[in-house]
Amino acid sequence: MGEKNEQGSDFVTLDVNAQTFFSSAPPLKDESDIAKKVKDFIAQNGEAIERRRLIGIVCVTSGGTTVPLEQRCVRFIDNFSSGHRGATSTEYFVKAGYAVIFLHRRGTCQPYFRDIPEDSFMEYFELNDELTVNVRQAHMEVMKSSIGNYHASVRGGLLLKLPFTTIFEYLQILRIVATSMDSLGPRGMFYLAAAVSDFYVPWMSMVEHKIQSSSGHLNVSLAPVPKMLSVLRNEWAPRAFCISFKLETDTEILLEKAEMALNKYKMHAVVANELLTRKEQVIVLISGKKITIRRTEEFRDVEDPLIDLLVQNHLEFAKQLQSNGSA
Amino acid sequence: MGEKNEQGSDFVTLDVNAQTFFSSAPPLKDESDIAKKVKDFIAQNGEAIERRRLIGIVCVTSGGTTVPLEQRCVRFIDNFSSGHRGATSTEYFVKAGYAVIFLHRRGTCQPYFRDIPEDSFMEYFELNDELTVNVRQAHMEVMKSSIGNYHASVRGGLLLKLPFTTIFEYLQILRIVATSMDSLGPRGMFYLAAAVSDFYVPWMSMVEHKIQSSSGHLNVSLAPVPKMLSVLRNEWAPRAFCISFKLETDTEILLEKAEMALNKYKMHAVVANELLTRKEQVIVLISGKKITIRRTEEFRDVEDPLIDLLVQNHLEFAKQLQSNGSA
Repeated sequence: MGEKNEQGSDFVTLDVNAQTFFSSAPPLKDESDIAKKVKDFIAQNGEAIERRRLIGIVCVTSGGTTVPLEQRCVRFIDNFSSGHRGATSTEYFVKAGYAVIFLHRRGTCQPYFRDIPEDSFMEYFELNDELTVNVRQAHMEVMKSSIGNYHASVRGGLLLKLPFTTIFEYLQILRIVATSMDSLGPRGMFYLAAAVSDFYVPWMSMVEHKIQSSSGHLNVSLAPVPKMLSVLRNEWAPRAFCISFKLETDTEILLEKAEMALNKYKMHAVVANELLTRKEQVIVLISGKKITIRRTEEFRDVEDPLIDLLVQNHLEFAKQLQSNGSA
Repeated sequence: MGEKNEQGSDFVTLDVNAQTFFSSAPPLKDESDIAKKVKDFIAQNGEAIERRRLIGIVCVTSGGTTVPLEQRCVRFIDNFSSGHRGATSTEYFVKAGYAVIFLHRRGTCQPYFRDIPEDSFMEYFELNDELTVNVRQAHMEVMKSSIGNYHASVRGGLLLKLPFTTIFEYLQILRIVATSMDSLGPRGMFYLAAAVSDFYVPWMSMVEHKIQSSSGHLNVSLAPVPKMLSVLRNEWAPRAFCISFKLETDTEILLEKAEMALNKYKMHAVVANELLTRKEQVIVLISGKKITIRRTEEFRDVEDPLIDLLVQNHLEFAKQLQSNGSA
């Protein structure tokens, strides 16, 4: 901590910012419970990796973080994200041979659950003579595959779901997961699809009670959230394979910002996506290339070929590091 | 519009603010579709009211509204609300003999669904020999009553669900519902449990693209949302029975603010609740009294005695107005 890294003094500044963020954050509830779950999950699946039954463990982050504007929170700033990308990707990672730590915003899209629409969900069922509840025949196939796959991944111990709401919870849990996953070396992967707030109100400068509206306009001043990607790469899990996401609404600046993220945070890959077309197409910046991935008739989800590409690159990365003896 | 009411000039100011809000709001998608659904629902159930098969129609609003900070919305300010109060109350209103227009935030708690926890939902089911999906015996009773009651209310045409996300959607849909419900006279009721934003960024002054974070701090300036309770009471549905909610985190100012809302907006009742105890106790300001309603062993939900109290008062109110010949 606080040491200079080979890139110079940048590191120190970031580190100090990150430390300030954590030391002033409200303490995480159930911290020891979460830490134990993560440790057990990594121990169990780490063994499966050694026996070559699994490729690795990936931490998939999903959904948006909130920024409370009041300590007893009524109002908060939120970042839009349905969590669909993270939930879908989790399914493909399990299929590809990974165990997944699914760090997700409470209430967002869940793996194996995305085919069952929340708002018409009750229509999937019928009462038989008021005695039993049945799944309607028309929805049986969807329910069967959803529930079958879900139970298989849970029974196989391949899925650990950790929920968050605020930026404080998200970053504290991510730190626990990342420092625990460091033991996996290059077999650890981070797939950072969550929409993380760029700005926040530091806990200590936050008002305790609900802001009153009688006084006319409301002015909110927000401080930048420290760039934790750097801390993750440099301190928490420096040997892991790291993929971050860049979402923009303006195509013009998307690739430029994605490239900046790749270089500044030394990510192994950056997935660039635009708000309106993100389910159809993404551009992956990886190994000096820009690869466009599209949803086609062959692939139901753009995440299918996307995860395939990332897994191939992760395997290369892990093989190289292991043959160099650095893992 | 723009006329003076008997209370003097206040009305005009409010009206102008409201008009500015609506004329600058982004147009509602599916406006004509929503208007038709509402019209049909009111026509059908209005007939049942005339035949004395129903007491009335209540519009229950539920969940929090969002305030977008960008036109192509990535970031928004949100108001905390699980929607539990609205969903639970809807069930008790149907049970008491009402048809319900459930105007709710997308993704929040739904009537008849609140006993089925979202996060462990998959555990309710099992695969039998990979052939059919069954409800696990341990969860059969909950599923039976949830699905039975849900289907009964839907088949009976007693529940119309209308979703919103932003403050713009919420107020535009509320206006459609309220102006349509005006035809019901005192048989119409508004139960305004939604957590509505007090501040917003007017659409025209909003940036189009995602706000960039490179420039240090972020300052957001928000304008007050016009007080639509007044417009609802004075213009949209002046003969309806109106209940609004006051949620505070600070007990000290809660009753004071509730009383202010009662007088200022001429509500028939205000339900005052505190964030931390809201599932255990509420205080109802009604007919010059303050009545404390508590969840006891007799009542599973505080909404059970709460709806009972409100229905009694609504019946009184409707009887009085009808015998005065003003409906």
